Amino acid sequence: MDRRDFIKTGAIAAAATAAAGCGFGAGRDLGNGKSPVAYKPSGKARLRLSWEPYELKLRHTFTVSGSSRTSTPDVQVKLEYDGFTGYGEASMPPYLGHTVESVCAFLQKLDLGQFNDPFRLEEIMDYVCGKAGKLPDGNLSDAPARAAVDIALHDLYGKLLGQPLWRIWGLDPGKAPLTTFTIGIDTPEVMRAKTLEAADRFKILKVKVGRPDDKEMIGAVRSVSSLPIAVDANQGWTDRQQALDEIFWLKDNGVVMVEQPLPKDRPDDSAWLTEHSPLPIFGDESVQALEDVRRARGVFDGVNIKLMKCGGLMEARKMMTYARAEGLKVMLGCMTETSCGISAVSQISPGVDFADLDGNLLIGNDPFEGVTVEDGRITLKDAPGLGLKDPSQDRG
Amino acid sequence: MDRRDFIKTGAIAAAATAAAGCGFGAGRDLGNGKSPVAYKPSGKARLRLSWEPYELKLRHTFTVSGSSRTSTPDVQVKLEYDGFTGYGEASMPPYLGHTVESVCAFLQKLDLGQFNDPFRLEEIMDYVCGKAGKLPDGNLSDAPARAAVDIALHDLYGKLLGQPLWRIWGLDPGKAPLTTFTIGIDTPEVMRAKTLEAADRFKILKVKVGRPDDKEMIGAVRSVSSLPIAVDANQGWTDRQQALDEIFWLKDNGVVMVEQPLPKDRPDDSAWLTEHSPLPIFGDESVQALEDVRRARGVFDGVNIKLMKCGGLMEARKMMTYARAEGLKVMLGCMTETSCGISAVSQISPGVDFADLDGNLLIGNDPFEGVTVEDGRITLKDAPGLGLKDPSQDRG
Repeated sequence: MDRRDFIKTGAIAAAATAAAGCGFGAGRDLGNGKSPVAYKPSGKARLRLSWEPYELKLRHTFTVSGSSRTSTPDVQVKLEYDGFTGYGEASMPPYLGHTVESVCAFLQKLDLGQFNDPFRLEEIMDYVCGKAGKLPDGNLSDAPARAAVDIALHDLYGKLLGQPLWRIWGLDPGKAPLTTFTIGIDTPEVMRAKTLEAADRFKILKVKVGRPDDKEMIGAVRSVSSLPIAVDANQGWTDRQQALDEIFWLKDNGVVMVEQPLPKDRPDDSAWLTEHSPLPIFGDESVQALEDVRRARGVFDGVNIKLMKCGGLMEARKMMTYARAEGLKVMLGCMTETSCGISAVSQISPGVDFADLDGNLLIGNDPFEGVTVEDGRITLKDAPGLGLKDPSQDRG
Repeated sequence: MDRRDFIKTGAIAAAATAAAGCGFGAGRDLGNGKSPVAYKPSGKARLRLSWEPYELKLRHTFTVSGSSRTSTPDVQVKLEYDGFTGYGEASMPPYLGHTVESVCAFLQKLDLGQFNDPFRLEEIMDYVCGKAGKLPDGNLSDAPARAAVDIALHDLYGKLLGQPLWRIWGLDPGKAPLTTFTIGIDTPEVMRAKTLEAADRFKILKVKVGRPDDKEMIGAVRSVSSLPIAVDANQGWTDRQQALDEIFWLKDNGVVMVEQPLPKDRPDDSAWLTEHSPLPIFGDESVQALEDVRRARGVFDGVNIKLMKCGGLMEARKMMTYARAEGLKVMLGCMTETSCGISAVSQISPGVDFADLDGNLLIGNDPFEGVTVEDGRITLKDAPGLGLKDPSQDRG
């Protein structure tokens, strides 16, 4: 047999261990409905971007160090192309400096109608990023607005491929992570009640620390639940030795990780704390986008990646690749968001070390259905793009 | 209008600059044949791997520092699943230590029949990499065999999605690079003749240097062509100051980049040379896989990524992401390969700084048709997976 015949006519060296496959040479099964019919961009249609402010109404008043609020400003985005629609969103917690006005002003600057092929993800996002300014820390401005476009573009792209993003990206939905659920700071009585309510549905809890009464708050949760706890200090500690002492106490009380213990402008102290800490330390405020993952080497054990910080899935995936190459752990987080944003970031969640993706569970007016939490775990849908239940299907 | 109606019924804030799209709410156009029909893995079929040695016959005797040969050992691989077939290959230039036997022994160890979903790229390649050993330099063993599986898996994956990999990866085929074409070392007369022959079809040439007669060889090419030249020293220079002096001379003679001037075990000298060189310096032998890209920071201006060195497209894409995050230039290279391997690496070529992808042009028994070189430029096909002309279509 001529060796070239192997390629042309069939296998002669099938692995002994392989399951019997159908005979090579039979051709593809074109008759049973399984064969893909690919979408080809016509080149005639154009991208069309639209948006509207949408105020997220919180189920409960939300408190972080120094502020409380009952709603979060948000902008919902649609990206239409040739009869398909991708959804995206920008969420703007007020303490981060973005507003409905700043997001809409950025979106208004974009001329996406110049693009006739939504598969050109790199070219389109390069254009979008080119409309942003450079911040003093080296990152690009307008991350939530860029994230909104990026999310909608990826939803559209997945719909054109007819597949969920997690499948396109080669991931196993069975490896999607548990998500933490935040027990908001309140009186010990209320925190105990909230913990009991959450303990049925979640396998790991999160508590905000960095206040004088940290031990009382952790104690309240611990008094009614033995679930592991993640803590987020939001830069709230100032003395590194005191922080280390508290981390040892937290570890003794079932805490499993610590987010952003010290102010972001003190990387040397963060590096010292990471070196001495018995718990993994994750950077959050210190880690906005890819450039900060580079700076996280030797400073943190891991990074908390959020679409609203980094500008979307394209940048987030680069951050994950870079972080893993450096041996950094990866955590995914969110703002208060609808199921659109949460379903987007969940697409890259299989295999991450921690996930804090409860943002959609905290609002009372979520217009989407997307990923759910089942037995504490992020549960991805086998539906194209972000896997959102398309709200237009509800009409009539 | 209730704000939620925006999402449910239509856009009210369409960008003024956007081209008019079709009305939102009309639903997807399911009747015009444009809608994708996605392939869903049945869960019943299994991956089936087979392979066969295939000796690549060189059109011309090939010479690098210290050796000549007329053929290259190669193993062709097929990965079948549910009536679809992905193609891959392992190419083993003899000086790299891999053999037909070592590749087949590695493939024989794999039980890919355990997998019933080819979309699980990460899980499958983690398994394949888990069968490799760790080399003293920190990289995994058996890169060509792993590359063969990775290439076949990606070809299969693209076919299941019905799209070329470059489209799935969001790239613009119009940004595919020029490829260099190597003018083999020979007598000045023969080199002049080869240069004249190549100068019609290519826009950039490559010459192997690191021999005593470098200037004569470059002079021969330059005497009949003003095309830019890339040079590859294959670690052939030993004195860094002499190397720098030669690089200045090369620059004056239209050379535009230098590959691996110094031995790979001398990173400090490479860093010194990179710092002082008027031409960009790329690491090749120094850069096998991702771990080496980390080590290339501050040592080289760029890295030469080859599938047969790094183990395939998955690793290559991580290397590109990491390299760009570090501001390193990216070059893609190859061994003597069929159009299977060359078409695979070409999928990630849009936007790279240099490409040296002439390996398939050097053999006389290429069983595939895939990417071509048009006017000196890599030209990607709009066909699923690697875009190979499926050899089974030639039967009968």
